[in-house]
Amino acid sequence: MNMSERPHSLIYTDWTVIEPHFDPTLLHARETVFTIGNGYLGTRGSFEEGHPQAMAATLIHGVYDHVPVVYTELVNCPDWLPLVITIEGDRFRLDQGEVLSYERSLDLQHGRLSRSVRWRSPAGKTIDLHFERFASFADQHVLALRCQITPVDFEGSIEVQASINGYPENQGFNHWESIGQGATRHGVWLRVRTRTSRIELAMASGMNLSGAEGSPQTANVPGYPTLLTSFFASPDQTVTIENVITVYTSRDVEAPTQAAQTKLADLPSYADLRSQHEDAWKQAWENSDILIEGDVKSQLAVRYNIFQLLISAAKHDDQVSIPAKTLSGFGYRGHVFWDTEIFILPFFTYTQPALARNLLTYRYHTLEGARRKAAHYGFKGAMYSWESADTGDEVTPRWALPNDPYAEDIRIWCRDREIHISADIAYAAWNYWQATGDDDWMRDYGAEIILDTAVFWMSRVEWSNRHERYEIREVIGADEYHEHDVNNSVFTNRLAQWHLEKAIAVYDWLKQHHPQRLSDLEKKLKITPERRSRWQDIAKNLWILDSPSGLIEQFEGFFDLKDINLNDYEPRTKSIQALIGIEEGNRRQVLKQPDVLMLLYLMRQSQEFPYSPAAVEKNWDYYAPRTDITYGSSLGPAIHSILASDLGKSVEAYDRFMQAALVDLEDTRGNASEGIHGASAGGIWQVVVFGFGGIQLGDRHPVANPHLPPGWSRLKFRLHWRGKWHDFDLKPNPTQHLPAPMTPPPPSSPRLPIRGVIFDLDGVLTDTAEYHYRSWQRLADEEELPFDRDANEALRGVSRRESLMLIVGDRTYSEAQLHEMMERKNGYYVELIQTVSPHDLLPGALTLLEELRQAGIKTAIGSASKNARPVVEKLGIADQVDAIADGYSVEHPKPAPDLFLFAAQELGLDPGECVVFEDAAAGVEAALAAGMWAVGLGPEERVGAAHVVLPSLADMHWSAVQERVQQASHQECANS
Amino acid sequence: MNMSERPHSLIYTDWTVIEPHFDPTLLHARETVFTIGNGYLGTRGSFEEGHPQAMAATLIHGVYDHVPVVYTELVNCPDWLPLVITIEGDRFRLDQGEVLSYERSLDLQHGRLSRSVRWRSPAGKTIDLHFERFASFADQHVLALRCQITPVDFEGSIEVQASINGYPENQGFNHWESIGQGATRHGVWLRVRTRTSRIELAMASGMNLSGAEGSPQTANVPGYPTLLTSFFASPDQTVTIENVITVYTSRDVEAPTQAAQTKLADLPSYADLRSQHEDAWKQAWENSDILIEGDVKSQLAVRYNIFQLLISAAKHDDQVSIPAKTLSGFGYRGHVFWDTEIFILPFFTYTQPALARNLLTYRYHTLEGARRKAAHYGFKGAMYSWESADTGDEVTPRWALPNDPYAEDIRIWCRDREIHISADIAYAAWNYWQATGDDDWMRDYGAEIILDTAVFWMSRVEWSNRHERYEIREVIGADEYHEHDVNNSVFTNRLAQWHLEKAIAVYDWLKQHHPQRLSDLEKKLKITPERRSRWQDIAKNLWILDSPSGLIEQFEGFFDLKDINLNDYEPRTKSIQALIGIEEGNRRQVLKQPDVLMLLYLMRQSQEFPYSPAAVEKNWDYYAPRTDITYGSSLGPAIHSILASDLGKSVEAYDRFMQAALVDLEDTRGNASEGIHGASAGGIWQVVVFGFGGIQLGDRHPVANPHLPPGWSRLKFRLHWRGKWHDFDLKPNPTQHLPAPMTPPPPSSPRLPIRGVIFDLDGVLTDTAEYHYRSWQRLADEEELPFDRDANEALRGVSRRESLMLIVGDRTYSEAQLHEMMERKNGYYVELIQTVSPHDLLPGALTLLEELRQAGIKTAIGSASKNARPVVEKLGIADQVDAIADGYSVEHPKPAPDLFLFAAQELGLDPGECVVFEDAAAGVEAALAAGMWAVGLGPEERVGAAHVVLPSLADMHWSAVQERVQQASHQECANS
Repeated sequence: MNMSERPHSLIYTDWTVIEPHFDPTLLHARETVFTIGNGYLGTRGSFEEGHPQAMAATLIHGVYDHVPVVYTELVNCPDWLPLVITIEGDRFRLDQGEVLSYERSLDLQHGRLSRSVRWRSPAGKTIDLHFERFASFADQHVLALRCQITPVDFEGSIEVQASINGYPENQGFNHWESIGQGATRHGVWLRVRTRTSRIELAMASGMNLSGAEGSPQTANVPGYPTLLTSFFASPDQTVTIENVITVYTSRDVEAPTQAAQTKLADLPSYADLRSQHEDAWKQAWENSDILIEGDVKSQLAVRYNIFQLLISAAKHDDQVSIPAKTLSGFGYRGHVFWDTEIFILPFFTYTQPALARNLLTYRYHTLEGARRKAAHYGFKGAMYSWESADTGDEVTPRWALPNDPYAEDIRIWCRDREIHISADIAYAAWNYWQATGDDDWMRDYGAEIILDTAVFWMSRVEWSNRHERYEIREVIGADEYHEHDVNNSVFTNRLAQWHLEKAIAVYDWLKQHHPQRLSDLEKKLKITPERRSRWQDIAKNLWILDSPSGLIEQFEGFFDLKDINLNDYEPRTKSIQALIGIEEGNRRQVLKQPDVLMLLYLMRQSQEFPYSPAAVEKNWDYYAPRTDITYGSSLGPAIHSILASDLGKSVEAYDRFMQAALVDLEDTRGNASEGIHGASAGGIWQVVVFGFGGIQLGDRHPVANPHLPPGWSRLKFRLHWRGKWHDFDLKPNPTQHLPAPMTPPPPSSPRLPIRGVIFDLDGVLTDTAEYHYRSWQRLADEEELPFDRDANEALRGVSRRESLMLIVGDRTYSEAQLHEMMERKNGYYVELIQTVSPHDLLPGALTLLEELRQAGIKTAIGSASKNARPVVEKLGIADQVDAIADGYSVEHPKPAPDLFLFAAQELGLDPGECVVFEDAAAGVEAALAAGMWAVGLGPEERVGAAHVVLPSLADMHWSAVQERVQQASHQECANS
Repeated sequence: MNMSERPHSLIYTDWTVIEPHFDPTLLHARETVFTIGNGYLGTRGSFEEGHPQAMAATLIHGVYDHVPVVYTELVNCPDWLPLVITIEGDRFRLDQGEVLSYERSLDLQHGRLSRSVRWRSPAGKTIDLHFERFASFADQHVLALRCQITPVDFEGSIEVQASINGYPENQGFNHWESIGQGATRHGVWLRVRTRTSRIELAMASGMNLSGAEGSPQTANVPGYPTLLTSFFASPDQTVTIENVITVYTSRDVEAPTQAAQTKLADLPSYADLRSQHEDAWKQAWENSDILIEGDVKSQLAVRYNIFQLLISAAKHDDQVSIPAKTLSGFGYRGHVFWDTEIFILPFFTYTQPALARNLLTYRYHTLEGARRKAAHYGFKGAMYSWESADTGDEVTPRWALPNDPYAEDIRIWCRDREIHISADIAYAAWNYWQATGDDDWMRDYGAEIILDTAVFWMSRVEWSNRHERYEIREVIGADEYHEHDVNNSVFTNRLAQWHLEKAIAVYDWLKQHHPQRLSDLEKKLKITPERRSRWQDIAKNLWILDSPSGLIEQFEGFFDLKDINLNDYEPRTKSIQALIGIEEGNRRQVLKQPDVLMLLYLMRQSQEFPYSPAAVEKNWDYYAPRTDITYGSSLGPAIHSILASDLGKSVEAYDRFMQAALVDLEDTRGNASEGIHGASAGGIWQVVVFGFGGIQLGDRHPVANPHLPPGWSRLKFRLHWRGKWHDFDLKPNPTQHLPAPMTPPPPSSPRLPIRGVIFDLDGVLTDTAEYHYRSWQRLADEEELPFDRDANEALRGVSRRESLMLIVGDRTYSEAQLHEMMERKNGYYVELIQTVSPHDLLPGALTLLEELRQAGIKTAIGSASKNARPVVEKLGIADQVDAIADGYSVEHPKPAPDLFLFAAQELGLDPGECVVFEDAAAGVEAALAAGMWAVGLGPEERVGAAHVVLPSLADMHWSAVQERVQQASHQECANS
């Protein structure tokens, strides 16, 4: 995660994510980010006018079709976006002409994607375009698209073509056969059918033009039905095109074409559609929102992840589930993994239980596929597929096939060995039942899932005469770096054991409450009281690795594998597996994702074996450093964040949280183009609620035991538990405010009165400069580079890279070596700041903060450090500051004004109302550029550019500072 | 091959293949059959107006792109055919409205595909449409399409859209990214690029309208540029749309878009383009045509196969070769196999040597790929790839991947083991050199091919100390049913030995004539005199399996494998491998295609070891019955035909010839939809020239030693050999005529004078009824069914199936059993008719034939038997009949008139000028239905419907017959 290298950052407000520039190199990642949907379909954020490299997609739940190697995939459906706008013969597209301004934004609250572009055509005509689109959250078969067109400097003819593109592709492959198209008086329609699965789909499209003369014509080009209109427009005349599209498949209705046409004919106006859509979103957010104050980036990122989950869950269909990449991209081909049950489901269980029920019922409907899989492998009962699609049959590819004709193919073993999926599903079913008390579901659906998979485990375990114990051999546990000779994986064995325990409980519950249902199931699944006893025997005698020390061995022999020091591979942008190879990964103590820790997390809520706080600590210390948390699996960071939070490791907890929360928004793993990381999104919700909110689900009702990240002033959400809503409003400091989002004004001269103060952290409030010095010194010593305190003075206000360059002098290092040294130094620094305490506040700092609070002046931190939040926390002043702008907040570092502007915005103040305290020249420059008052701390030659120069904060009272600023203000007026 | 089940036969004339009906079930096979092309591209015969199940394709030489599993494939290029015609709002398409008449024909002589359709729209408007298209054989970058539209019963508006479809697909996959499109005053254009190989392609399209008012407009729908026009037309007013398209790729020119636009702007009229195109075809046929008289079906089929070869060979590109399925379909993904060098190349070497040179030079340009493959496998020199594409690297897929997620993947071993390909290429290079004397090519290209592959063989053979011999272990020979434990394949070892012998000869030739080139090659390929000696040693000591008996064991241990009786698996419509499985196929003495026999064929021309006529006979008797010639490999039948012809097995030779010749036209293997069988087409040419024509290439000049199939009255072709053309005009009977193609008139009363006589064969000229009886009797005995001569009387004139039904009576058999019994009976019958001789002519037959000849009356055979030709031959009357209509000639059997009408057409006579001699009621009925005179032989109750009834031909002279007919004629007049 190297955010400083991102060329074009997104802007975050409480509810809206804004893309202020168009960068073609981010095209595919941003198509994912700006995905919209409604639980029926998802549509990637591709441009209406098209782009040569576009990877447009509309994916509809359950529409799968055969494809080689991976068996089946979610089918890219006809594209409803194409809108070709031609200005006096020039086609509008961002790769031609000139983009004069651009802003795209996704309004999460209202589920609306919009874009404003000012564009100059190759012929020199300038035009304003404003696009808006939504997939109706109120009526899942309705899509809507609006374009407002305003000539700026010309009058002339404009042509608009709105099409249904019947040639969508899954990375080149078009699953559809066109079987009809035509026009009615309401618009055009297209009817297509998948090649193998024979699913029919129909779309109908209507167009409305206002603000100019013109009526839509139709052009029925084969497979590409088009509505076209042309009109004449003058400067400042806004013409509006509204395009509404209806969609049905043969999964929904018998006659999709008829349904799409009828629906189109009956639609209300665009404005009414939008208002119904917004009402539906309002309802969804009422129960699913999480409010965070004091950290706008976290606020937006959490809402963004929730939004992506809400648009992925089917409202009216219990035969589908959420694919690993939701309905937003082609990664994993729309297959469903344990990601849904373990990572995503809790969000739905506790905020949208009806949707959770749908998701779990998918596993009931795919039991037959799981039975076929069990039979294929020679086992009994139901063996769920590692990758599942429409039928539940195993669709994990057998091979990864290289393009190089001489390279060897790679066998993928998950289909055969990653059997914990069956227990994961039972775990989810059990916990849904516990949380909702939905006995009907358990009786009608859940019991059959849990019992028939218990039958599978019974046939899968082996009795070892030698050890007099049951064993499970040759598996892949949660950690996928180990796929050969993994016997008695503690994750797998314990979940299997837990599963059998719960199966017995379900059996007994049925026997007591629903004997007829039990009798039916006994017959259907061939369950007998003897088998129940057998399960008990297995649950009792299944060997679980453990040790008296509390350190759990991941599987038999794991501790005998060669150890690894992951730091040896830093810096890197690839997984450890990619660096050392699959076979070497198998031979080392390196994990792709938490495994023993994952088990501890799964047992944490119910405090079952082997969970204990001590076990978490012991195993964390061993396994966390051996886990490839950055590039291994995207499933890891959220889990590590929760456990780190439990362990009081607030730096790491927050860092892992942000890593997961920004995985798509900021593409921290480099694969956002393939689609939303659904499991990570679900994990984020668990971090906030179970980790930071510390929610414990006792037997009576949920209880919060919060440890909010540094700077968070409020955390508010609600949970549905056993039929009731439980509201949580966690506020460490009730006086804190909720900043209103605002756009920073252009820099201007500061003015009085002063309403806020922004402190640089390092060298102003604390002397972490000392920790930086000690970290650099340690690095320099290791590298045998000359360095001392004098040399350190030159590093003040200098970036990490420049500091390093000063230290290495003319010694030659490769770029990779330099990168590694910077990371190493930061590691030392992070270690050191764990020890920061209120004693580290510089003289005068605390007094000044208290005076400011009394004076009603708002305060913020404005530090380039990514560690600012934990440092503020450890300094004990978190309650005294109203906002924190840190290394995550903006793209451009000081001397750019961005960081201070961000802080002012967080405080809800104009820049001119703020004073900045800075000790570095670049910081002073940044404050001045922001149009703020600058107070320089230190020698004149360093901070002399500031309005006011002080030696330090020692003995400096707010009244004195105000006076000095006042003087400077008069001077400024005199000079002007 | 069960032709009686084909629902809609094609009609064959000397130069034109006609499809008289549209049958949607044959859509894909007929798209292949009606492929046109020009050596630069091939375009399948899909309909201009589209069809829901269409598999349209335009494939351009050398345009490959990456695809999973099979690495690379020939890319389906943008489609230039789409022509949407809308009649008063109804879109013309054959799957809607009503097709009142239909005829599609491919004129091979002029390279033109045309189609006439009378269509009634759903709204009841009737219209005549006539389409014509060609890919210019004179200018390979030009394509042309014409549509003539004539309203029949309405006046109204008609709209025509002519598009370039930028969404072509390779079975669903679209390899193209659209990178531009637009319009000029000449038309529209499209610019696209392949995804991985980054080949650019541009097409430009112009439209001309005549016969009505209207001017083309453009609609630039994304990826689908369209020219559209609409006009008003009245009944009988013919409006003509001419659409010309130009195409270039970045393989041809730097700027394809510019080139396509410029070419379009400079094009002459459609009529001129067509006339240049026809001139170019005329030239090609001058050297490549084969004229056959007396067998119109063979004539057409041979020309058809030659046509498909001529349109597949690049004229201006020596970096490409002919894929296994030419440029006509997706089978084998456009990969190049030994099919080109061994099966196809001789046709070009002897009739279009410049094209042969291009094809062979492709192997020179792909030497680097062959070297990479050798290095990958740890060998030296150049190891050609079993499947080759643009680079020469191995692109045989490693796996056949099943759709069923639980089925096991099948490893394909050809890439590793089928190493004879390197010797095949050397064989082709050597023989091209021998035939052409093209020393320059051998010096510059061929020598490097032959020598560097010799280096490969040197590194591939192993010395066995135990046996004191060189061996080649673990290969796949020509027969692909054996792929494990195949050591010392005689085919592979002998070709490797031959290759080394020829490499030494080339080395010595270079040394003598081009020492500088040899010196360069010695350096480049690291060839030394020591290596030359090493080759000699290997050639001398490489073990070739042989036996004193002359029966050659296919590979070590083949005779120890379990034997097989292929009859045990009849009837079948699948390969033996599909029936018994891959592993069982490996364990049995069953061959997919000729192997030892293939080796004998390859050594036949030069009479080298192990070829001898005795060896052919000995090995034929052993291997032919063990070869899966019907459904194994399409490479087999032509080779078997030639060897059968050599052995005097005329029935089998002709049968295998027809099997190969009709493989696409009549889809005898059921896979014509995947594309033209290129190797089979090349094999057909070899059958006709080397087999039936018996061409031997002595040291001085080619000599013919013909054994024409029964009924062939003339065989004419020319060969280019060592710089000169050699013409062959083989005519067993110089008095025979060349029938002009004609359309049979509707039945009418026959008239005098009589100019032709058509004889049924069975029961009229000979008593093969006896053989039928004996065959049925043998079957009945085996099945223990009651049957005798009396029962046999009931079978006269009754079809095979009905005969069987009469014999089985009320015994119950499954359809498969019935089918098997019919096949078995036919096998016995074919065996028996081998013994037919002139003694089997019925009394009076020979005299009558001689009288007819003297009287100038033409004679024909009109027999439903597929064995009619060999029987006529064996009866010794082949010279006495002018035409044969047999079981291959028509679709509908007697009593339909088709067979006799066909015979009359062959004779060049009107039906009314013919007399039919028949012994069966159904035959008499057929003659009357045809409007011919009928002479019935036999009892009144059987043939009383005839104009004249005679007991038999015994003592019946032509004068008497004429008199009887005359009487009947008077009677008829009196009755009318």
